[in-house]
Amino acid sequence: MTYLKNRTMRSAVAESVLTVSPAVIERIQAGTVPKGDPLEVARVAGVMAAKRTSDIIPFCHPVPIEYIKIEHNIAADRITLTATVKGIYRTGMEMEAMTAAAVAALTVYDMLKMLDDDMEILSVRLLKKQGGKSDFKDAFSVPPTRLLKPCVRLSSAKSRASLKPFALMVRSELRMQCSHALLPDCAEAL
Amino acid sequence: MTYLKNRTMRSAVAESVLTVSPAVIERIQAGTVPKGDPLEVARVAGVMAAKRTSDIIPFCHPVPIEYIKIEHNIAADRITLTATVKGIYRTGMEMEAMTAAAVAALTVYDMLKMLDDDMEILSVRLLKKQGGKSDFKDAFSVPPTRLLKPCVRLSSAKSRASLKPFALMVRSELRMQCSHALLPDCAEAL
Amino acid sequence: MTYLKNRTMRSAVAESVLTVSPAVIERIQAGTVPKGDPLEVARVAGVMAAKRTSDIIPFCHPVPIEYIKIEHNIAADRITLTATVKGIYRTGMEMEAMTAAAVAALTVYDMLKMLDDDMEILSVRLLKKQGGKSDFKDAFSVPPTRLLKPCVRLSSAKSRASLKPFALMVRSELRMQCSHALLPDCAEAL
Amino acid sequence: MTYLKNRTMRSAVAESVLTVSPAVIERIQAGTVPKGDPLEVARVAGVMAAKRTSDIIPFCHPVPIEYIKIEHNIAADRITLTATVKGIYRTGMEMEAMTAAAVAALTVYDMLKMLDDDMEILSVRLLKKQGGKSDFKDAFSVPPTRLLKPCVRLSSAKSRASLKPFALMVRSELRMQCSHALLPDCAEAL
Amino acid sequence: MTYLKNRTMRSAVAESVLTVSPAVIERIQAGTVPKGDPLEVARVAGVMAAKRTSDIIPFCHPVPIEYIKIEHNIAADRITLTATVKGIYRTGMEMEAMTAAAVAALTVYDMLKMLDDDMEILSVRLLKKQGGKSDFKDAFSVPPTRLLKPCVRLSSAKSRASLKPFALMVRSELRMQCSHALLPDCAEAL
Amino acid sequence: MTYLKNRTMRSAVAESVLTVSPAVIERIQAGTVPKGDPLEVARVAGVMAAKRTSDIIPFCHPVPIEYIKIEHNIAADRITLTATVKGIYRTGMEMEAMTAAAVAALTVYDMLKMLDDDMEILSVRLLKKQGGKSDFKDAFSVPPTRLLKPCVRLSSAKSRASLKPFALMVRSELRMQCSHALLPDCAEAL
Repeated sequence: MTYLKNRTMRSAVAESVLTVSPAVIERIQAGTVPKGDPLEVARVAGVMAAKRTSDIIPFCHPVPIEYIKIEHNIAADRITLTATVKGIYRTGMEMEAMTAAAVAALTVYDMLKMLDDDMEILSVRLLKKQGGKSDFKDAFSVPPTRLLKPCVRLSSAKSRASLKPFALMVRSELRMQCSHALLPDCAEAL
Repeated sequence: MTYLKNRTMRSAVAESVLTVSPAVIERIQAGTVPKGDPLEVARVAGVMAAKRTSDIIPFCHPVPIEYIKIEHNIAADRITLTATVKGIYRTGMEMEAMTAAAVAALTVYDMLKMLDDDMEILSVRLLKKQGGKSDFKDAFSVPPTRLLKPCVRLSSAKSRASLKPFALMVRSELRMQCSHALLPDCAEAL
Repeated sequence: MTYLKNRTMRSAVAESVLTVSPAVIERIQAGTVPKGDPLEVARVAGVMAAKRTSDIIPFCHPVPIEYIKIEHNIAADRITLTATVKGIYRTGMEMEAMTAAAVAALTVYDMLKMLDDDMEILSVRLLKKQGGKSDFKDAFSVPPTRLLKPCVRLSSAKSRASLKPFALMVRSELRMQCSHALLPDCAEAL
Repeated sequence: MTYLKNRTMRSAVAESVLTVSPAVIERIQAGTVPKGDPLEVARVAGVMAAKRTSDIIPFCHPVPIEYIKIEHNIAADRITLTATVKGIYRTGMEMEAMTAAAVAALTVYDMLKMLDDDMEILSVRLLKKQGGKSDFKDAFSVPPTRLLKPCVRLSSAKSRASLKPFALMVRSELRMQCSHALLPDCAEAL
Repeated sequence: MTYLKNRTMRSAVAESVLTVSPAVIERIQAGTVPKGDPLEVARVAGVMAAKRTSDIIPFCHPVPIEYIKIEHNIAADRITLTATVKGIYRTGMEMEAMTAAAVAALTVYDMLKMLDDDMEILSVRLLKKQGGKSDFKDAFSVPPTRLLKPCVRLSSAKSRASLKPFALMVRSELRMQCSHALLPDCAEAL
Repeated sequence: MTYLKNRTMRSAVAESVLTVSPAVIERIQAGTVPKGDPLEVARVAGVMAAKRTSDIIPFCHPVPIEYIKIEHNIAADRITLTATVKGIYRTGMEMEAMTAAAVAALTVYDMLKMLDDDMEILSVRLLKKQGGKSDFKDAFSVPPTRLLKPCVRLSSAKSRASLKPFALMVRSELRMQCSHALLPDCAEAL
């Protein structure tokens, strides 16, 4: 169940590709699309869609997004839109990235459809995701139940009993909330 | 400008294609996907997304949708989702159909991603749109300014002046609101 | 299909009933509920929910609401909330009224739950709906195909052909858009 | 009541003014604001807010918006944002224009707040509204009840009775739906 | 105030009951309802409504939902819908469960209203809630201020001062964020 | 980057000012505004807008709001609306307070516009914000890297290695999540 998973820094990158006729690509680059710059509007639409993903996709978990970036690349006959989403949570951010990439492409489509009635979204796919259980295999090679032992060992036998509730809580925190402790920037700080 | 266009019955059909591994396709057909039937959930998600299109795509016009249908086709290694959207309005329904098809595919993706981490949305594209100006060329071969003439001719010279505001209004109605009079089912009724 | 139905003035009235302990009813009447007057907040919540019904209920048609009223009645141990919704359209407003009544009751529940942990919504039901086909049976006892006859008869044989497109349009308008002509206030005006 | 008002072309223009330090104004003009061009993002935000006005302002009527434009003017120490909203309806568009102008200013504020912690929205106000009852005083100097007389007079006594339902409907349409017949572009067409 | 309450695992179960005529119940079971399976659509609608509760109920706190389940039970003349909502937070999930149950019932109503015009939602009520202060009385019988004592006692007098900020922080965490440490599954792990 | 900032208790207070004619102010105070008490409706609208800020302002971060209060002050010719928003997070709550104040003023405007067509929102501005980095300068005068030293020093050389992952995690938590430990009410408790 989701609420027993580790809270870790998660990131996901998704990409959408839209075919556009070379003549219209030139108009984008010349800045002469009537409704404005479709790539800038797509950036805004993608960011807003990422934030609203769990409201659009029925069984998608609401997640605390911390970072969203929509980038684009223009080729002679196509536009590639890339969405990067990050957050610290128990589940991944791939649906947020996929939805942002898809909505960014739909927005470009909407702004260009009066100029080009032959566009097609050729692909919406996940490029990368990071931060789930599999990425922390090594970090947890010291089994979690071992981590608290030293802490408890330090205390006298007498105080051990009273320490137990404390250890119990820290233990739980470790498993539930602290995995981002393993991020590189924290390691350096020690 | 949009508000000078004819109000006609418009329809649009868009399609999205999602690659899914044969093993997962079998699970869908066997009804053993853990979160439920992804195609039925996608149908609901697509309908809701169509209704919310102008809230998701920044410069998309809000339109009074009258009809939405999401259908699917399952092949050995892919799922095709088709969205049909209809309504009587001055602008087309293609963004509603495109958004519904895209969101339906994202919903299937979301429900299967724990079983298959290699899916890709291969295409989101418009299959058909009907009801815009070009579809009514013949209907308007009698130029609209001619249509009211007989009506005015019927009246005496004296009453013509007082008829003018009425004619003016009907005239405007004709151009602005009545084009769906040209739908086949109405023609039969006469 | 919805888009072939008549556009008429539609109205619907729905009611919800919430049981509340007499002690808390007294606090509402004394104006000492900590978060403010739950009935006024419920009124606002009900109006907003009516406007958002098609966004909450998956297959509910978006309708152009013209009028919403949320009223309440306080008894010794219960609160009754009544939602009236009106609009001119091809489909009824009952889901809007039902949703408004339900959300109004949930809002009162939310504001009182710290004072009373034994409330229950006892009923959400439709009290009345008006304006659909069945309400216009008499109005259309002159079959609609007859209505235009006199108009066409007035014209000469020669002009009849050119009148046809006009008649066709008015005919369609009559069937599709004008049924609210039969509202009492219009009849008086003639 | 709203549903008895005339459907006319309505437009509203609202304006918001945001004070910004000259140093930050220069950064906007130099294109060096870290999050992108705040005026382009404000344009998108304003358009989206206009479409969602009835969902944000509790008792605001949902209206079929046909046209939204967000413009800006940059002075040495302030930014003025102007929102124009148009549509054909029974009620005005001023809340849509006011909300769009306010949200556009809030969006600029949000994007600049890391650079300038002393901004203030100095004004949000309506500049102009057109299309309501008062704008059509002259057009209706011929009282609406007179308009249909000639039409009825044309028919023989015998056909008058059968014409009545038709006249009744057209009459109602005239009062309820057709006032935009008085728009200049339609007048010319006759 | 909410932000001083403990973050604990909370769950709530609510139930709604809808009367439906036996003939229509049979159609649901036979799978012949025109718009599809109302119970599956209600499941999707309930899940989406739970996630949007704080957007529908004015003073309802936004909460990080981790788990939602909508179940149904069909009797001869009624349908019972049960919503279970869970999350780790400082406030309960009862409004989310109540809203999900109510919206699921409204959705079934909407899909069946063309077949049965005599349905009524008979009840929306909370069946169970867990995880608030009252459920943790025993867990906190060791007063929280005592918990940190052993930790501080371990340190030398000299280091005690420097430990204080650390203890202060852990102390706060204990009271504010860690109560779910007391969940059974964590206790076992020690 | 946002996700490296401290999670602290943040609060923001914003204010909007709306000019209203003295005659209409009197009607508000006499309770004779046709649509109800505009100040109570504005309170509800402001609270709902605060919760939806990141959905309205494109690049505004979604934040876990814990507390919202909308207050008003009526003078002879103006209404002042004050929004206070609080929450424990890595970023401030100023956009939530600004948006709530602006929407509250727009709501009053909407409810009074039929009585007064000369209102203007004179100001929307931030009065106060608390809880960011600058407010904790003193708290962190003991550099964070020093805080964990004593803890590690207590352990024997042998156990130090095994303690490291634990210390690493607590260290990260300290920097990332615990700054609200420095709130006055916690300090007293020790």
